[in-house]
Amino acid sequence: MDAMMMNAMTEDMMSMEGMPALDMTMMQACMDACAACEQACTVCSTQMMDCSVSCMNCADMCNTMMRAMMRMQGMTPASMMAMLDACIAMCQTCMDMCMMHADESPVCKMCADSCRACMDACMAMKDALAG
Amino acid sequence: MDAMMMNAMTEDMMSMEGMPALDMTMMQACMDACAACEQACTVCSTQMMDCSVSCMNCADMCNTMMRAMMRMQGMTPASMMAMLDACIAMCQTCMDMCMMHADESPVCKMCADSCRACMDACMAMKDALAG
Amino acid sequence: MDAMMMNAMTEDMMSMEGMPALDMTMMQACMDACAACEQACTVCSTQMMDCSVSCMNCADMCNTMMRAMMRMQGMTPASMMAMLDACIAMCQTCMDMCMMHADESPVCKMCADSCRACMDACMAMKDALAG
Amino acid sequence: MDAMMMNAMTEDMMSMEGMPALDMTMMQACMDACAACEQACTVCSTQMMDCSVSCMNCADMCNTMMRAMMRMQGMTPASMMAMLDACIAMCQTCMDMCMMHADESPVCKMCADSCRACMDACMAMKDALAG
Repeated sequence: MDAMMMNAMTEDMMSMEGMPALDMTMMQACMDACAACEQACTVCSTQMMDCSVSCMNCADMCNTMMRAMMRMQGMTPASMMAMLDACIAMCQTCMDMCMMHADESPVCKMCADSCRACMDACMAMKDALAG
Repeated sequence: MDAMMMNAMTEDMMSMEGMPALDMTMMQACMDACAACEQACTVCSTQMMDCSVSCMNCADMCNTMMRAMMRMQGMTPASMMAMLDACIAMCQTCMDMCMMHADESPVCKMCADSCRACMDACMAMKDALAG
Repeated sequence: MDAMMMNAMTEDMMSMEGMPALDMTMMQACMDACAACEQACTVCSTQMMDCSVSCMNCADMCNTMMRAMMRMQGMTPASMMAMLDACIAMCQTCMDMCMMHADESPVCKMCADSCRACMDACMAMKDALAG
Repeated sequence: MDAMMMNAMTEDMMSMEGMPALDMTMMQACMDACAACEQACTVCSTQMMDCSVSCMNCADMCNTMMRAMMRMQGMTPASMMAMLDACIAMCQTCMDMCMMHADESPVCKMCADSCRACMDACMAMKDALAG
């Protein structure tokens, strides 16, 4: 995302009660990881393998998580924490399913990697929010 | 939703390890509450009031929650719990914002009522999952 | 949707340049048909049949169409027409796929019926917009 | 998106009746433009300006368009054309609204630029599909 967009989001967050000033580089990384995970899951879901339904669920949650981070003035620290936990749980579920056939399907391998990266980025956000 | 669809979902759930057999009437009520909340939030978000951004966030989460319940074979008990918590948190945030001007805006009042109903339905689901 | 919500949407539309006053009963019917079609497609997509990917696409488009109708102040007559055409095309594609195995899968039969109902409702909206 | 994902999508398309072999670089560019436009619109919608509702509508359509391109085996040439027309129409509407206050709001200026880029990418796809 453009630096100007990031500035607009930073200003939003500064006006939020009880919200710690989050590092925008980390936040940008988390939004990017969500977007990449949504895309990997969307492609992976079309393979009609055991993981497909987990992938659909994870794609939707990653998109919702990304959008929520782009609309921080509509969030509270508590709702951010709950959303991050849910996103992590969905990525975990999808990754577990994709890893079962990662050897035979390179797309599943890549989807699992995207889920792992998204989980890591969400955990970093949680640490920052917890202060 | 049609009874046939519900049967298809029931069969999916029965095949899930560690997932308690959920009462489909309660589950249907939760999906309906999510759908109604997404719609109320979508209309409320267009009013350009203080609650608009919370409404956008809540609409997305309610849709993602509803879809996840319709795709239960891609869920685990743990991911369901985390998603329900996140949906409850988003409804709480949106309801709190809408209640601030519920007196002047009947649409906000109704949006807050939809959020409350969605929270209650999600909490009932949590209780059932905790068994 | 609640009558109050519908009133809010009616007022929005009246303020739109070049937008004919649409019958709210018809519009409500179209939003309901979109919501029902999104739900049927979401369940049908989990069956891992030939239609699954068409169902995923159709579910997303029906949700986007429903939301656009709930946010009419962000639409123009031209963008409404194009959206309705796209929604009809996606329902047609999904219905065609589901009908191929409607005999063996009652869920596909119901999904196809939902697609047909959504197409009909969108066509009625197009006729009304064309005046 | 990863090269491996692109290969998976290319194979899908080759199996589609009546679908011309699309240049994957162009298709990747269109998916990227849709993703960028969804993000710009999502941020822009939070500003509570005249364009906000158009931005919400455009964000949803760009996401739906991107996903449909990632799930091409669920598309037909006709449904692709209709979707591209709808996406172009939504970007046009959003761009027109944002341009009205592009001088006072740099975020709106950037959102309008993203809409323009998305329209251009969709038009290139249309030309390729028309052969």
